[in-house]
Amino acid sequence: MVNVAILGYGTVGSGVAKVLTDNAEEIAGRVGEELNIKYVLDLRDFPGDPFEKVVVHDYELIAADPEVSVVVEVMGGLHPAYEFTKRALESGKSVCTSNKELVAEKGAELLKIAREHNASYLFEASVGGGIPIIRPLVQALTADKIEEVCGILNGTTNYILTAMSEGGADFDSVLAKAQELGYAERNPEADIEGHDACRKIAILASLVSGKQVDYKDILTEGITKITDEDMKLAEAIGGSIKLLGVSRWKDGKVFARVSPFVVEKNHSLYAVNDVFNGIMVHGNMVGDVMFYGSGAGSLPTASAVVSDVVEIAKNIGSNIPITWSEDKQPVEDPKAFTCRFLVQVKEGKQAVADAFGQTDTVSESAEDGTVFLTENMTEAEYDQKVGALTVVHMLRTI
Amino acid sequence: MVNVAILGYGTVGSGVAKVLTDNAEEIAGRVGEELNIKYVLDLRDFPGDPFEKVVVHDYELIAADPEVSVVVEVMGGLHPAYEFTKRALESGKSVCTSNKELVAEKGAELLKIAREHNASYLFEASVGGGIPIIRPLVQALTADKIEEVCGILNGTTNYILTAMSEGGADFDSVLAKAQELGYAERNPEADIEGHDACRKIAILASLVSGKQVDYKDILTEGITKITDEDMKLAEAIGGSIKLLGVSRWKDGKVFARVSPFVVEKNHSLYAVNDVFNGIMVHGNMVGDVMFYGSGAGSLPTASAVVSDVVEIAKNIGSNIPITWSEDKQPVEDPKAFTCRFLVQVKEGKQAVADAFGQTDTVSESAEDGTVFLTENMTEAEYDQKVGALTVVHMLRTI
Repeated sequence: MVNVAILGYGTVGSGVAKVLTDNAEEIAGRVGEELNIKYVLDLRDFPGDPFEKVVVHDYELIAADPEVSVVVEVMGGLHPAYEFTKRALESGKSVCTSNKELVAEKGAELLKIAREHNASYLFEASVGGGIPIIRPLVQALTADKIEEVCGILNGTTNYILTAMSEGGADFDSVLAKAQELGYAERNPEADIEGHDACRKIAILASLVSGKQVDYKDILTEGITKITDEDMKLAEAIGGSIKLLGVSRWKDGKVFARVSPFVVEKNHSLYAVNDVFNGIMVHGNMVGDVMFYGSGAGSLPTASAVVSDVVEIAKNIGSNIPITWSEDKQPVEDPKAFTCRFLVQVKEGKQAVADAFGQTDTVSESAEDGTVFLTENMTEAEYDQKVGALTVVHMLRTI
Repeated sequence: MVNVAILGYGTVGSGVAKVLTDNAEEIAGRVGEELNIKYVLDLRDFPGDPFEKVVVHDYELIAADPEVSVVVEVMGGLHPAYEFTKRALESGKSVCTSNKELVAEKGAELLKIAREHNASYLFEASVGGGIPIIRPLVQALTADKIEEVCGILNGTTNYILTAMSEGGADFDSVLAKAQELGYAERNPEADIEGHDACRKIAILASLVSGKQVDYKDILTEGITKITDEDMKLAEAIGGSIKLLGVSRWKDGKVFARVSPFVVEKNHSLYAVNDVFNGIMVHGNMVGDVMFYGSGAGSLPTASAVVSDVVEIAKNIGSNIPITWSEDKQPVEDPKAFTCRFLVQVKEGKQAVADAFGQTDTVSESAEDGTVFLTENMTEAEYDQKVGALTVVHMLRTI
């Protein structure tokens, strides 16, 4: 029997308990042993809950129990999740988590501590909710040089952008509706300002780089400034606006950015709508591969957490290797990030041609000026070329 | 150094050599050792090819060489691939393959031989080309009861159906164009009659069941009878026709079918067009997860083969467990397979209501009769209810 302790009995924690209970037979078959929830750590009590008798309020009980070999950290936040995780790993207990803040901030250090104590630190649920993405990157796409990872990594913002694009409503009213439906939190800043997506792309970028990509080094822009005019501009080229986390590798350099992008119809992320997540990985041999599913929610996220529990339970006493060192991987200046720019300027077609040379003109009128799509270029090149023109709107296009 | 022998130097085999060469440094980093292509087995010679000096014509050389620990079988067909694979596994060499015919026919037996000789038999490339699907099913979605696997598993037929739906051209002329472009083989039967998709869904169904699902037990229908009228019927409900391999698990029973289905706009496979593949997996906890990418082609397929080589090279001398036993998993009678039926009958709305009760009427006219979409029901129920009506067209809808 493998004993599990769940830290945090909120949305994800209660989902983990449900998955381990409802699918107990299948999971025991895969592990070769039964899994037992020995403790649930939470500040609250849960009278009437099937696990009420194993609820404890003091982490010491778990830390001191040598029978616990798997710790499920689904508390969120940096503290005390960091201290609890560190202590568990140092005593040879393996930890799995959905906590992207902690993985992005301390992943390299915690992976190192795990290695040193023949334990494992796994975090499949920290990116893409239920979508298998960490394991495919680490264990499956092993024949390729990964050249790009590009994802819709936040369900809340994708829901808002989908609703804005379909209903023509403005950002504030759609956000209010999302909060009402429980798709957005009361304090939605981490989602709508792109911080959540930023931590997730930093985790994926670190995994691919094998070095710590610091999320603070990634230029991050949210969706609060997206207007109905932006939506219409995107539609003019048959695209829609998505909040993307993008990381690229070229000539040993790493480029990364989180911001709204126009995704055109032929892109594999175009059809990823509502609260769903989609992550596109481009390998030099495999080309584009895309992973799609529920990026959040109690049971999908718990499914990913429990898949980590299963892998740990099959490898008790040994380290499941994830090569992500503490060395810092620099991220290039955002001005070196390339994309196509979809621009509306007050001037006519000729002024645009003078500034940019060859471009795709989308429309031109005396009233609205010129809408055009540039070639692929760096932000620096764009800034320089657009200097003489009067920009009404600009959107980045991928 | 890990020595590899490649059996078959065709499209996939030469791709494997290219991936191992071009990405040699990254792959060595992941394995911890260099990989060396010691032999390429083919009946032909390849003067001027970078591997011309390691080309051999006699399998005995490879079988007798104890330095070869990984055999890449990319010959296709049952014989002599089966004999070569068996012999390699019996001598403790691990084998990886893209050969779906062999995996579908002899997978359980070869997995057993591999286990008995501390070797591995891996086949990531046998389904979905470069898309990681075998590994996610076996290693990642381990917390769920899988309830459905549903995939666009054949790029050739997806190309043909996409072209028919976009261009309004008929099956024969699109097939001819696909052959011209190299997307369809001279003898396209295995693709267009659904045999290829059938073997692939049988492999996925066996993996999920843990028992041998015989591809011969799966009712298989190809796309040769799809007409422009069918396309229009699908469009009438905003759907498009895809050749799907479907396998479902319910109450310990397995249901499976390969045939054209109408996929509606809100389904995750709707946007999978052209030669791409998409595989949707439904778990009882994670919900729908979708995997998308290039289902064929030299380098994507080779990428999947080499990911198997990497995993084998990291586990020389031990068996990578895949629980798929030789016990036979029965497939239920196709008449018990449920779906919604999109039907055009000569009769009016009232006759349809008399036969089916509540249905969604799509259109009704004196000229074209009634087009309607049934509730979800078994094929047997449909047959019984539709008996009194005169069917002009019928399509299954998923």
